[in-house]
Amino acid sequence: MDGGISNPAGTAERLAQMLAALPDLARDALVDPVPPRNLNDWSALPPETPAALFCPRSAEQVAAILAAANAARVPVVPQGGLTGLCGGARPIAGGIALSLEKMTGIEEIDEASATMTVLAGTPLELIQRAAAERGLFFSLDLGARGSCAIGGNAGTNAGGNRVIRYGMMRDLVLGAEVVLPDGTIVNALSKLIKNNTGYDVRQLFIGSEGTLGVITRLVLKLHPAPGCTHAAICGLSDYDKVVDLLRGARRKLGPTLSAFEAMWPDYWEVACAVPGVRDPLEARHAHTVLIEAQGTDEAIDGPRFMAFLEAMFEEGIIEDAAISQSLSDVQAFWGVRDACAEFKTTLGPHHAYDVGLPTGQMDGFARACRAAVAEAVPGGRSVYYGHIGDGNLHLLAWVPGAAPQPGEALDEAVYATVRAFGGSVSAEHGIGTTKKKYLEFSRSPEELDLMRRVKRALDPNGILNPGKVIDA
Amino acid sequence: MDGGISNPAGTAERLAQMLAALPDLARDALVDPVPPRNLNDWSALPPETPAALFCPRSAEQVAAILAAANAARVPVVPQGGLTGLCGGARPIAGGIALSLEKMTGIEEIDEASATMTVLAGTPLELIQRAAAERGLFFSLDLGARGSCAIGGNAGTNAGGNRVIRYGMMRDLVLGAEVVLPDGTIVNALSKLIKNNTGYDVRQLFIGSEGTLGVITRLVLKLHPAPGCTHAAICGLSDYDKVVDLLRGARRKLGPTLSAFEAMWPDYWEVACAVPGVRDPLEARHAHTVLIEAQGTDEAIDGPRFMAFLEAMFEEGIIEDAAISQSLSDVQAFWGVRDACAEFKTTLGPHHAYDVGLPTGQMDGFARACRAAVAEAVPGGRSVYYGHIGDGNLHLLAWVPGAAPQPGEALDEAVYATVRAFGGSVSAEHGIGTTKKKYLEFSRSPEELDLMRRVKRALDPNGILNPGKVIDA
Repeated sequence: MDGGISNPAGTAERLAQMLAALPDLARDALVDPVPPRNLNDWSALPPETPAALFCPRSAEQVAAILAAANAARVPVVPQGGLTGLCGGARPIAGGIALSLEKMTGIEEIDEASATMTVLAGTPLELIQRAAAERGLFFSLDLGARGSCAIGGNAGTNAGGNRVIRYGMMRDLVLGAEVVLPDGTIVNALSKLIKNNTGYDVRQLFIGSEGTLGVITRLVLKLHPAPGCTHAAICGLSDYDKVVDLLRGARRKLGPTLSAFEAMWPDYWEVACAVPGVRDPLEARHAHTVLIEAQGTDEAIDGPRFMAFLEAMFEEGIIEDAAISQSLSDVQAFWGVRDACAEFKTTLGPHHAYDVGLPTGQMDGFARACRAAVAEAVPGGRSVYYGHIGDGNLHLLAWVPGAAPQPGEALDEAVYATVRAFGGSVSAEHGIGTTKKKYLEFSRSPEELDLMRRVKRALDPNGILNPGKVIDA
Repeated sequence: MDGGISNPAGTAERLAQMLAALPDLARDALVDPVPPRNLNDWSALPPETPAALFCPRSAEQVAAILAAANAARVPVVPQGGLTGLCGGARPIAGGIALSLEKMTGIEEIDEASATMTVLAGTPLELIQRAAAERGLFFSLDLGARGSCAIGGNAGTNAGGNRVIRYGMMRDLVLGAEVVLPDGTIVNALSKLIKNNTGYDVRQLFIGSEGTLGVITRLVLKLHPAPGCTHAAICGLSDYDKVVDLLRGARRKLGPTLSAFEAMWPDYWEVACAVPGVRDPLEARHAHTVLIEAQGTDEAIDGPRFMAFLEAMFEEGIIEDAAISQSLSDVQAFWGVRDACAEFKTTLGPHHAYDVGLPTGQMDGFARACRAAVAEAVPGGRSVYYGHIGDGNLHLLAWVPGAAPQPGEALDEAVYATVRAFGGSVSAEHGIGTTKKKYLEFSRSPEELDLMRRVKRALDPNGILNPGKVIDA
């Protein structure tokens, strides 16, 4: 990376040089003053004011801004819906923020190919609705759906609740238009599922957290709208039975299985204490699992779901279950799983983690991590839940009543346990700046070196989101 | 690329220098003389004898060989099962061939995570069988299953018959061990479905046709074995109805839909003329489609399949259908689709193409391409079939009785039509050398430049498979 970029001295001159070189085409993208929302993402880091904010309306404007920034060596932080949790979209002092918020809209829905072409700033929920209006389904779903932008979803390879069936953004993006740091607009807007013509450049940018290029347009893969949805909350006596239930669900529900969310009892307790959340089960169990299946036909898939649950009872795998009778039951069951969004109010400040682990090792990890957190900080608590069919465990750790929270000690305890289990420090939220020092816990030195080579090849001046994910 | 590599002068000296520098560790990987099988892949190009053949038994040997070749600037052509169709694994004069044929074996099956770890030279069929023995399913399937190696399947991002349900190799590889041209062994052997820790380096190598690194190990994603399989051959009156049938199948069969193979009447005619192939329908139709669904339970999914076909009849979408009553019927139906493997005998020499197109445009393309082939060469014929649900059309073109076939004129006619339709010159077979001059028909200049940047970053001396896919 150009040493000067991380050196604040001279940044004002660089910015002046950049603004002077900006073509007319891009001048009206400058937004002054910078609104408070553009000073941070959803991470717990303090806000940061960029030297300037640009809100371009076209890929051509993005290209002109990047070319000028590159020539003047001004750092650029791309911004989408600013709902990331790891500081990836937080501005850099002396650098510019480049928000895609004015590049919104659905350009085409191709029903025969089951694809949708969208501008990168389009909110996820708008895309979900537009697909539904045509009897189609865009499968990505996450809590921030109303605010997050599809370009940010791609940049962070977002996952969410239904990865077990439909995959992550990496699986849902067929084509992309990306602007490179030097201002080159790369048109790779393919609608094709199969396209073996050289390197898959689109995959380079998905999950790169805005460090390699700025995504401006996407071609998304759609699915048919599900014809019916069934869910159950199951109580189980130990983790081996949770794994048996997952195996049974994969076998008997087949590809209709659309979610498999395990909740450890410590999570279940704090979730059911959230006002408005109803516990669908009468007794407490060692483990609780939310299973969802999306079928095509109530008359066929309703009985299949019941037969599956009956078989799991008969085999002694589940102890108890509440079964949805309606879509509002399905929503109520998700209410327990989604209660974590309210924990800021009910638990107070806490740290959230999203780790990746082989499914079979999750309970062993939860035990070890719970002990590590309790040992690392007096009064340290932690609760566990997650998309275990995808190998993704979420956990929250905190010290009740402590202000500030001992964040670094909690991070150390959690990530040291992840490393000991050979897991991933981020299954879905990404690295940004908050997990950067732990990246080496999950990636080999050779992988890190390879990432640096890619970064240097695509962004030789290190202007794009410098200091995020990895240093070149 | 180092200019010297494509210059045959000095290659003997370079090879001598490489052999002299080879550590003891790698010396016994040298195989002399070179067996005839290693002189070519399944492309129609003439065989080529490499300066030496190495058959290493470990990633460490691969690393030592690559490091020595890199230092001496000797070109290296990686080889798997040598079943590629585009010359990607064909040796280069003066270069060495590096065959993974002795690196075979299944190292682990993790049932809870539904993953399998294998060495890159392992034949696909062995992997399919090992999964089946555990009640699991490895979904990749293609005609060369008995000979092709899984490392080559990854290197070419193989697709095959069931992409519509399970995806291509890009979707089936969770982790990889790759040796870079400089001999660095990159361990990225993750079993995790969700792993957002920096760039997805594994995706760089999948589909790169051995030009960026040598894949030595893979972690593969497994699925539960299907509980039942149903198939039908449907006759339809026009292409709009084929698209309607695909839409209906997606909606009513949901994710159980595992294949949707359309065959144009010209294909149907030559397929049914292959000895041993039985036409399951009584009358000829404008279009014929093979539909397959893999379910979990005969009692549920059998009636679902029948109800789907009845609805398609009632809606006037299909004119006629033969429905499988047994697995042997399913195989017989696939017999018509797989008859193309015998066309070398029944049609004589012909050129095979695998193009990518949006589903809605396939019939328009077929008409235009048929006319272009007939116009380009006197007596030129072409037949059309393919995985249309994946946007992948296959076609064969030839001049009956001509020897040699006017290959270049046929290529020009086909690829010019692909370009006019904005399609892909290769949906699954890859580029190798045979399609290299047409790569720019499907990729923008900016995409090609980006590919070159990646190539130069990972293989600065241009020793890995030089002259294949793209020139750096």
